[in-house]
Amino acid sequence: MNQLGDNPATEKLSKKALRKLNREVEKLSVEDAKPHDMPLVVLDDEGIESATASYGILPLHQSQCEKGPDYVDLYQLSSLELENKHVWIRGRLHRSRMKGKLCFFVVRFQACRVQNVLSVSTETPKEMLTFVAGIPKESIIDVYGCVKKSPVLIEGCQPDTVEVHAERVYIVSAALPTLPLQIEDAMRPEDDETALSRVNQDTRLDNRCIDLRTPVNQAIYRVEAGVVRFFMDYLTKANFVNIHTPKMISAASEGGANVFKVSYFSGSAYLAQSPQLYKQMAIAADFGRVFTVGAVFRAEDSNTHRHLTEFVGLDLEMAFKNHYHEVVDLIADMFVNMFKGLQREYEDEIQTICKQYKAEPFRFLEPTLRLEYREGIQMLREAGWELGDYDDLSTPAEKFLGRLVKQKYDTDFYILDKFPLDIRAFYTMPHPHDKMYSNSYDFYMRGEEIMSGAQRIHDPVLLTERALHHGVEIEKIKAYIDAFRYGCPPHAGGGIGLERVTMLFLGLDNIRKTSMFPRDPKRLTP
Amino acid sequence: MNQLGDNPATEKLSKKALRKLNREVEKLSVEDAKPHDMPLVVLDDEGIESATASYGILPLHQSQCEKGPDYVDLYQLSSLELENKHVWIRGRLHRSRMKGKLCFFVVRFQACRVQNVLSVSTETPKEMLTFVAGIPKESIIDVYGCVKKSPVLIEGCQPDTVEVHAERVYIVSAALPTLPLQIEDAMRPEDDETALSRVNQDTRLDNRCIDLRTPVNQAIYRVEAGVVRFFMDYLTKANFVNIHTPKMISAASEGGANVFKVSYFSGSAYLAQSPQLYKQMAIAADFGRVFTVGAVFRAEDSNTHRHLTEFVGLDLEMAFKNHYHEVVDLIADMFVNMFKGLQREYEDEIQTICKQYKAEPFRFLEPTLRLEYREGIQMLREAGWELGDYDDLSTPAEKFLGRLVKQKYDTDFYILDKFPLDIRAFYTMPHPHDKMYSNSYDFYMRGEEIMSGAQRIHDPVLLTERALHHGVEIEKIKAYIDAFRYGCPPHAGGGIGLERVTMLFLGLDNIRKTSMFPRDPKRLTP
Repeated sequence: MNQLGDNPATEKLSKKALRKLNREVEKLSVEDAKPHDMPLVVLDDEGIESATASYGILPLHQSQCEKGPDYVDLYQLSSLELENKHVWIRGRLHRSRMKGKLCFFVVRFQACRVQNVLSVSTETPKEMLTFVAGIPKESIIDVYGCVKKSPVLIEGCQPDTVEVHAERVYIVSAALPTLPLQIEDAMRPEDDETALSRVNQDTRLDNRCIDLRTPVNQAIYRVEAGVVRFFMDYLTKANFVNIHTPKMISAASEGGANVFKVSYFSGSAYLAQSPQLYKQMAIAADFGRVFTVGAVFRAEDSNTHRHLTEFVGLDLEMAFKNHYHEVVDLIADMFVNMFKGLQREYEDEIQTICKQYKAEPFRFLEPTLRLEYREGIQMLREAGWELGDYDDLSTPAEKFLGRLVKQKYDTDFYILDKFPLDIRAFYTMPHPHDKMYSNSYDFYMRGEEIMSGAQRIHDPVLLTERALHHGVEIEKIKAYIDAFRYGCPPHAGGGIGLERVTMLFLGLDNIRKTSMFPRDPKRLTP
Repeated sequence: MNQLGDNPATEKLSKKALRKLNREVEKLSVEDAKPHDMPLVVLDDEGIESATASYGILPLHQSQCEKGPDYVDLYQLSSLELENKHVWIRGRLHRSRMKGKLCFFVVRFQACRVQNVLSVSTETPKEMLTFVAGIPKESIIDVYGCVKKSPVLIEGCQPDTVEVHAERVYIVSAALPTLPLQIEDAMRPEDDETALSRVNQDTRLDNRCIDLRTPVNQAIYRVEAGVVRFFMDYLTKANFVNIHTPKMISAASEGGANVFKVSYFSGSAYLAQSPQLYKQMAIAADFGRVFTVGAVFRAEDSNTHRHLTEFVGLDLEMAFKNHYHEVVDLIADMFVNMFKGLQREYEDEIQTICKQYKAEPFRFLEPTLRLEYREGIQMLREAGWELGDYDDLSTPAEKFLGRLVKQKYDTDFYILDKFPLDIRAFYTMPHPHDKMYSNSYDFYMRGEEIMSGAQRIHDPVLLTERALHHGVEIEKIKAYIDAFRYGCPPHAGGGIGLERVTMLFLGLDNIRKTSMFPRDPKRLTP
């Protein structure tokens, strides 16, 4: 940690900068005290393998040597081939404990935690054990040692059948001795009533770099990457083109409410609330089937468990031939394929998450259940809810309907089709035979909406008429309407909230658990 | 086009809205005159297949019937199985021509253009030919007819071996009779000296919905989707996790210049110039290897062929063990895999593009050529350029060096490694042995930079020192520095500009050709 004297870069500093620097470094050094007492390792051109010291702090890793050890991943350690072999591993010091002439310490990386043992011997002085026991938790360390089968299963470790008999231990990157949160606290199951200490959500988010190291967070964001991958792969195979739509737009396309304003050189711009106009333009431009994955922005002052001001939209749009149900069926099949893929390929991750955040496994039917809106209203009425035919569903009503559907059909995933026309966006195609309804649909997971979609109006005259009916200023959406003046195939699509899908698939209770760096009206950091 | 009377939605309009609507519709109707003269088709519950009229304008497509014809894709028409069979097709009227008792018309969709023939007979009155000849170009039409082998290859068509002997022709969605640009003009090769009419770039971009219909644009954005797919698939297989980073950030992380400001509720935010801080936080949080694909924003007032104010970043970051060249080698291999994949899977698209925009095929070596910066300077000096050892390369110098490298090594793709420390960002890791250089690299395609990257400083003390040296306010990057206080593995990465990669792979001359809806200081629309 003592690069200041050695580093060539300081030579060029002005006196003022140096003074400022020294003040900064002083601040750091106070907290940083521990590693400064520790021995520094001197490396020659051959690098770490030829180091004479068997422990200590390594010089700052500046890629000094092109070659070096073949490090072994922690999850590989349980393979039979490595038994009784010497290996190099790199990971974090998860915890350490001195016990007479022994020092036990656990090295963690991602979902793996491996026990290491140091015992005093002629090669291993007591000072080395003191050094290891004094390494700040969460420091990145390199260990060289022999892989041994453990006589018993090692509690709290994974793999739990092997341990490393350490011979050399080096600090690669030291952590401060005081952590803003303890990983072990952050890893505790939510229903563990014996827990002395919990980590609240703001502490987690304020220290996201540490919080994200827990096995459950490692798992959640891998599952989320899976959601995106299954979405993209399915659609790519189905001949969709992955497009990119601008986030900065010249006018607030959906009426102007809830939109963030941007200073754009001498003028202003807005952040797109959805890629819809652009997806539809791609359809009007003959791409036939398109999808796009990207940030969408909502300037809503909603502080709920499921709203973010910035989230990832998985959007798709598709020209169809005879009926918009061609699109609904394709989207439903895409989701079923995704759910199966997640349950197949992310079994370990899902188990890890369930251990900390208990949830019922996600259930779905094949083919997907599709109910008409009026059926949904009917089910709610039969359960005692007072609702008009064309009323919008409140969030509690949606959730309750989700429970009714689960009871009756045993599925956490279903579609509500043919919403009342009046409660949908102006560009929604009216029902062909019943003027009160529309060709629109929402998809639900565990009773919460995760996708909203519709057949869109592809005719400029009807679109103008509907916009006026909704009080949308025609001038502001001129570009949108113009997109349909030169012929456009009938089309439908939808917009999926990535974080909601991950949250509800896993049965989590807050969208901040599935957004790596969430944004809400009160949070813009980290 | 005459839904106004029929549509239930109008019933609910206020008088004021109706007046406004009528004004709007009147404006439309003036331009819309042609289709109004045309016969309307009345459909019963059985839909289009049972229509009694053999031509005319279909009612607005509102998904009236769940069932309908099995439409055949245009590219399938040349298959032997369809010869002498009756089919339904849907596409755009590309052009039409009356010739006595015959009417020839071409139906286009994406890269396909198919000739159709109508001839006067007892079933086909002369009026039907007049109707078809009068359909505005670019209208979406349905054709029912018999697939026939053509006696000669049909010029300008693809497939060019078959034609459809039409029996029924309907307008699904009419275009305005006057187009802001002609597709045939927009399709012309750039080196066609006989061309009477060209379409300039602003006209194209202003009417992007039409411009994007050209085969070359259909091809470009499919190739671009391929670039993203090969990037993501390669990295996913290499155990990278796809993450999403926020676009709205609380502070301008890279010093504050060239950043767009956003009104965020009662405060303000900025648009991220790169996902770098967040990628690095994911590394500090043990994800090990991450990538992210998303919008990045640069408020630079640069009006060049290769700058956009918003573009798509393909970013990656990776913890390495011994040397940052582990990362450089992986990225190079990812690119080689991408180039091979594009040349293998997008051969037709690349040929289509080359016909309109001539370019030399893209050449690359395996393994990728990696030169040190000092070698690049040396090559330029030998060619007569006057440059100091540590000077930055101007754009012309980069391009010239690209030509020198091409001459000497026959590659359009190479890496320049070990840039001078002073010309790189403050977070760049200094060279371990030579204080004037750094562990940083740029990747070039056809002499233009498409990726910039480096080993990052993972130590908070050195990072603070380097930030001060660069005059960066420490307070503004506190969150960034703090990310490294709790242990961080050595890591390196880079940021790739998607539109640049597509442009340079295809040898195009302007980045607006590879951004579907480009943004620059002068353009925020469509």
